[in-house]
Amino acid sequence: MSSLSNAGVGLMSSFIYLDHAATSWPKPVAVQEAMMKSLEEAAANPGRGSHSMAVEASRVLFKTRMILAQLFRVSNPNDIVFTSNTTMALNLAIKGILKTGDYVIATMVEHNSVRRPLEYLKRTLGIHVKYIDVNAQGELNMDDYKIALMAHRPKLVVCNHSSNLLGSILPASEIGRLAHQYGAYFLLDAAQTAGCIDLDVSAMNVDLLAFPGHKGLLGPQGTGGLYIAPELDLEPLLHGGTGSQSEEREQPIVRPDRYEAGTPNTVGIAGLQAGVQRVLELTPAVIYEREWRMTQLLMEGLNDVEGLRLLGPHRGNPRTGIVSFVVNDQDSSQIAFKLDREYDIAVRAGLHCTPLAHEAMNTLHTGAVRASVGVDTTEKDIAAMVKAMHEICPHKM
Amino acid sequence: MSSLSNAGVGLMSSFIYLDHAATSWPKPVAVQEAMMKSLEEAAANPGRGSHSMAVEASRVLFKTRMILAQLFRVSNPNDIVFTSNTTMALNLAIKGILKTGDYVIATMVEHNSVRRPLEYLKRTLGIHVKYIDVNAQGELNMDDYKIALMAHRPKLVVCNHSSNLLGSILPASEIGRLAHQYGAYFLLDAAQTAGCIDLDVSAMNVDLLAFPGHKGLLGPQGTGGLYIAPELDLEPLLHGGTGSQSEEREQPIVRPDRYEAGTPNTVGIAGLQAGVQRVLELTPAVIYEREWRMTQLLMEGLNDVEGLRLLGPHRGNPRTGIVSFVVNDQDSSQIAFKLDREYDIAVRAGLHCTPLAHEAMNTLHTGAVRASVGVDTTEKDIAAMVKAMHEICPHKM
Repeated sequence: MSSLSNAGVGLMSSFIYLDHAATSWPKPVAVQEAMMKSLEEAAANPGRGSHSMAVEASRVLFKTRMILAQLFRVSNPNDIVFTSNTTMALNLAIKGILKTGDYVIATMVEHNSVRRPLEYLKRTLGIHVKYIDVNAQGELNMDDYKIALMAHRPKLVVCNHSSNLLGSILPASEIGRLAHQYGAYFLLDAAQTAGCIDLDVSAMNVDLLAFPGHKGLLGPQGTGGLYIAPELDLEPLLHGGTGSQSEEREQPIVRPDRYEAGTPNTVGIAGLQAGVQRVLELTPAVIYEREWRMTQLLMEGLNDVEGLRLLGPHRGNPRTGIVSFVVNDQDSSQIAFKLDREYDIAVRAGLHCTPLAHEAMNTLHTGAVRASVGVDTTEKDIAAMVKAMHEICPHKM
Repeated sequence: MSSLSNAGVGLMSSFIYLDHAATSWPKPVAVQEAMMKSLEEAAANPGRGSHSMAVEASRVLFKTRMILAQLFRVSNPNDIVFTSNTTMALNLAIKGILKTGDYVIATMVEHNSVRRPLEYLKRTLGIHVKYIDVNAQGELNMDDYKIALMAHRPKLVVCNHSSNLLGSILPASEIGRLAHQYGAYFLLDAAQTAGCIDLDVSAMNVDLLAFPGHKGLLGPQGTGGLYIAPELDLEPLLHGGTGSQSEEREQPIVRPDRYEAGTPNTVGIAGLQAGVQRVLELTPAVIYEREWRMTQLLMEGLNDVEGLRLLGPHRGNPRTGIVSFVVNDQDSSQIAFKLDREYDIAVRAGLHCTPLAHEAMNTLHTGAVRASVGVDTTEKDIAAMVKAMHEICPHKM
């Protein structure tokens, strides 16, 4: 199944995993090894102890920050702070920057991890939010964007780099350029793109970059992070001990301490480091190319399944490793259930925490089946998925 | 060194770890095994997928909630929510419950993970906070407590169950009883007691219990949690996707989803489960007894080191596994450095994120050396530490 496969895969050799957009799996063997090493040798509290084990734990965190900075072209690694997932990074960014009366421009393809913090601040702080429409392929009308920017002069522009339902890729560099042109900060939700699309925070005008550790970066769950441009001072999401300036009532100003109160997930971050190293070796460009090829094969194979409607960009166009579809008016979870029980294929069904995108696609009543590929998904995996869908949908052409 | 020891210990056989109050180490072998099993077999997104692997991940979370509920005598496991550490649990509790103008009663031995959120809300929401004094042994004057409760009618009473500097144990049951008598909610910070003191949320009148996974519960870093009494509705700290009620703008009401937006640390929680199971097998009472015996031996041994002043409760009195001390006016970090480099003994030095307690002890200028024992600390470990301190402090009696 996978050149990265580890011992666990042997337990379910016929199993096909197409849920990489939720969590990549299996992890590189080096991730597992790094976590065990950390648990055995460096699982003390980084930055807080004076002993060698705590120093080693600090080193793990620093080195991981270094290679993340390399991946995202961040000049100062301390501008990257660790969070437990993308949701926490987005909450820190959104709640840390917005004040009463601020205007925000977002899109219809935002995940609930952006929409719900925004709706919460609408209710409690009285911020204003405009969600820009997308078309049936998940594309934005950039003229609408410009008009909204001119009309509302937002403090913050936020966008989902790639819709976790549609796989469509938004023109982040262009959005960032426009945001800066109109004086807004730019928050990019890279939940589906970190590791599989080349990201350069300066070139793309990104002020805040939220990313998961457990998807395209191939690390374990419980990891993620936020890049915060040096000139931005966010209110921290967590207040507490940092091991530095303990005598102060307030969070220290120094980064990353300011945004990392409490004991970090050292073991998880050690695993993330190994995952990012694998991404750097392969390069995001190669990973994108591999995944794109598999999505095209899958779309081609699913194209003639009776009653099946593919969502998102047309074949041949750019997309991340996500292929979602609906079959007539069938509940998506029934299809996913059959794939799991009868074919040992793992996909995801439902609304995928992105209801506005479903509204735009008219799929709120059925949800959608989402198959998502990873860096080591094979043509054989895709063929099995295509065959299963032909068998499940009874009226083939 | 330890009956729980794992392969890693072999790498540093003379190493003595006395920093359990920061992170317990080494972890039970079962913790490591559970994490590897989860990484290999169940590291998908719990509650979000329809496939078997995601179902298995949900099971890991549910089972861990079950045994935590058993440990803390919580009737509904869904009233326990996972966080990435105690700091996050305390931030959720404090920021989730307090509103403008509310009064809070805390103590001088609070950790910065309580003090800093309170000071932040003082500054931004205009809450009021009274920190009750402790004496030189870290004990509260309960009359002061009653007077403050009567005078201020607080919404929230919060206390550190055991000072992470002094090891003193506050009378949580009595504080909880008084809090309820005067109509306040009671938040207990069990950072130093979960797993080594028997906790019963009903019997102790605890409405909110914040606990770490990586200390007395023997799990990995990146884990922790908060018990929230069923009648309390906190504002969530994180807003985002929960895999449930995705079409709603607001966080779902249903627990634990309401408080667990984003992908959880499944692998870490699997490890925590194994740690809690070990605690349940041993029982907190036995763990307390073992640790207490080691603290008494250590205090006895340190007692005649020239210039050394022990902090916290007198010998023979209850305390958690913490023994802190200062030596004349010496900077505590110099002593910790020597213990590490010359004796391979890991302790912690500094302010330990609890500056008010240092104020009360008059040790702000030196900080303190903190040696903290774990469930498998041996008499040999203690003897080595005592011998080292006699050698480090030049003018012995």
